[in-house]
Amino acid sequence: MKIIAVDPFYLRMPEITDAADGTQDTLLVRVRTDAGIEGWGECDASPLVSIAAYCCPMSHGNIINIRNSLIGETLDSPEDVLRLSGKVLRNGLDIQQIQHAYSGTEIALWDIIGKKLEKPVYLFLAEMSGTSDIAHPKLPYASVLFGDTPEDTYQIAVGLREQGYRAAKFGWGPMGKFGAKNDIALVHAAREGMGTDAQIMIYAGVVWGTDYETAYNRAEAFAEFSPTWLEEPLAPDAIDAYGSLTKKNPRVPIAAGEGSNTYRMAEDMIVHGGVQFVQIDTGRIGGIMPSFQVRQLAEQRGVQYVNHTFKSHLSLAAALHVFATNPDFNLLEYPAAGSELSQRIVKNPFKVDPDGMVRVNDLPGLGVQVDTDAIRPYLVPVNIHVGTETVFQNAFL
Amino acid sequence: MKIIAVDPFYLRMPEITDAADGTQDTLLVRVRTDAGIEGWGECDASPLVSIAAYCCPMSHGNIINIRNSLIGETLDSPEDVLRLSGKVLRNGLDIQQIQHAYSGTEIALWDIIGKKLEKPVYLFLAEMSGTSDIAHPKLPYASVLFGDTPEDTYQIAVGLREQGYRAAKFGWGPMGKFGAKNDIALVHAAREGMGTDAQIMIYAGVVWGTDYETAYNRAEAFAEFSPTWLEEPLAPDAIDAYGSLTKKNPRVPIAAGEGSNTYRMAEDMIVHGGVQFVQIDTGRIGGIMPSFQVRQLAEQRGVQYVNHTFKSHLSLAAALHVFATNPDFNLLEYPAAGSELSQRIVKNPFKVDPDGMVRVNDLPGLGVQVDTDAIRPYLVPVNIHVGTETVFQNAFL
Repeated sequence: MKIIAVDPFYLRMPEITDAADGTQDTLLVRVRTDAGIEGWGECDASPLVSIAAYCCPMSHGNIINIRNSLIGETLDSPEDVLRLSGKVLRNGLDIQQIQHAYSGTEIALWDIIGKKLEKPVYLFLAEMSGTSDIAHPKLPYASVLFGDTPEDTYQIAVGLREQGYRAAKFGWGPMGKFGAKNDIALVHAAREGMGTDAQIMIYAGVVWGTDYETAYNRAEAFAEFSPTWLEEPLAPDAIDAYGSLTKKNPRVPIAAGEGSNTYRMAEDMIVHGGVQFVQIDTGRIGGIMPSFQVRQLAEQRGVQYVNHTFKSHLSLAAALHVFATNPDFNLLEYPAAGSELSQRIVKNPFKVDPDGMVRVNDLPGLGVQVDTDAIRPYLVPVNIHVGTETVFQNAFL
Repeated sequence: MKIIAVDPFYLRMPEITDAADGTQDTLLVRVRTDAGIEGWGECDASPLVSIAAYCCPMSHGNIINIRNSLIGETLDSPEDVLRLSGKVLRNGLDIQQIQHAYSGTEIALWDIIGKKLEKPVYLFLAEMSGTSDIAHPKLPYASVLFGDTPEDTYQIAVGLREQGYRAAKFGWGPMGKFGAKNDIALVHAAREGMGTDAQIMIYAGVVWGTDYETAYNRAEAFAEFSPTWLEEPLAPDAIDAYGSLTKKNPRVPIAAGEGSNTYRMAEDMIVHGGVQFVQIDTGRIGGIMPSFQVRQLAEQRGVQYVNHTFKSHLSLAAALHVFATNPDFNLLEYPAAGSELSQRIVKNPFKVDPDGMVRVNDLPGLGVQVDTDAIRPYLVPVNIHVGTETVFQNAFL
């Protein structure tokens, strides 16, 4: 097959706020081949900045856009995906946004290969790495924002419990902004609302920057409520501070890694940051293969790999293929309060099975179907003119 | 003062090729205040992708564009520059391109503060860090591309020697592409052309990827021609491979770091990559202050800081302020074969003094003046429409 089109689509809700809700807009990428097979992927990234990486004029041999690297290329095998990823990243060496922007395409390339060869993506990863090809169920944890107060947080937690969630992550909002007493009250409320038998995770939203002492003190203070982890207490690139924090062995394990824009950043966080859970966003790090490489590193080093997913179930599918075959990596971030847009992107979202678990779809490719009719109303037309040239306008969705 | 405008300008030559010549286009940023003072900076980055980071619609609280973070803000002191940088980077936490795009603005903010307080930028850095405020001359090395053959390279080197250069770096082109014999012949030719008393540097252009064994073998093979360093033999994020290479102690020192998009990447390269020269592009890493922080780390660890500059003398000015006051960091990358565009950007380029050295300008701010009349013919109009809104069109240059 030859790649004939690589089309990013900017979708958004009518109103966008500065809340830490990543589902208010999104960037989908559709890749088409001359064999009539198409694949889809989703980026967790700025849609406009990422679109620019698909259409920017060449600056020199290290700034060549993603479309120019891919159109006309051959795509017949998993090896072709790796080869094309190498080409895109080499040609985009001096485009800082390249991994964010390319992630959706890389995922779409796997989707195509899976459809063509009639296999789910996780089986290619198993074959290429010589590891188990048996997929295991994951325990989904709801990923929600803290309420503005402990009382609101309690109500949110009760609601999640009533929906049947056995695990939930609470993040952002007031956490870290109004002192230790309020922080502790928030965690207490989350635990009370979810009940003693549930898992709760606390997401601090990079609020303490490089202040690992405060992060340590909070981790210790939260320990009585037994959270599974304290997530991103520090800035994504404050690796030394993470190292100092984890060396103090707080009673609550530390999780981080969603800010990994490259494999190396994740490796740095694992090896030098010393985190116990590494959270990778397949829609930021460059797609499925670099995520899988982080999973392998986590396996080598006794760290638990977890997906970071705060987009649609298209992203969730990509994330799930990466670590479906490792039974010890048993937690799945499962967006539970996403926008209407994010809930309409796929026709066959992942259901929580009666046993409370989520399973990868054993269908060709990613195993989810994008609902173009449902998302068309959210499409944002984008036109970019450089000099006398129109370098970008939307394809037909 | 209040910031009233932040305007990126995309400039380019009529023809762009895929040669590794970063001067074929550029992105300048002009910042204006209500006091009538304006500052300028330059990014070494994709102009279009970077412009998108100035105008992208908000996605959520972690994707807010640079203009929205800055317009209306107070700018009166060096501390304001640091505060505003913190705000821009926090608001752009999930924009991967943020450092590349913001670099030009950060440099412009320093230019403004210097003009307002009537001091060259390097003096603010000296005051804020409590270090020496005496600027020292630098030995400029010409930074050129290898010729296509050893013979061409020899002629280029002879030309540089005749222009009076006592140091020159040769890079990209055929290096690493046609086997060891050709690589060695290229270095031999550079040495012959420059003469035995000159310094030569070899820039391998990331050609060996993660293959540190080949990089080591080349470094050893090049040793008889006594290059000052072998630069970027490996991929920018191949930190483990750099570590393996430098642990073998090749007789030619290893240099790298231009790919550092963040302070942490430079720190990682120094601490875990083990390089002996760290090369920082002020137009990529987020501007002058993060570059200065890398300089300080280099001082602590006995590594030599060198600028990476392959743009105009506006970039050279920013680069020079960062390390002007350290006499041991005595080498200056000095673009010697840039495009006509790159040579027209400033009215008062840095001259090589009769003693063969280059000195920082003791003028307020960056100490260079942008020649708007000269560069206007190179301006590329950019218009970006998102939905019903024009989110970007060029300001008047």
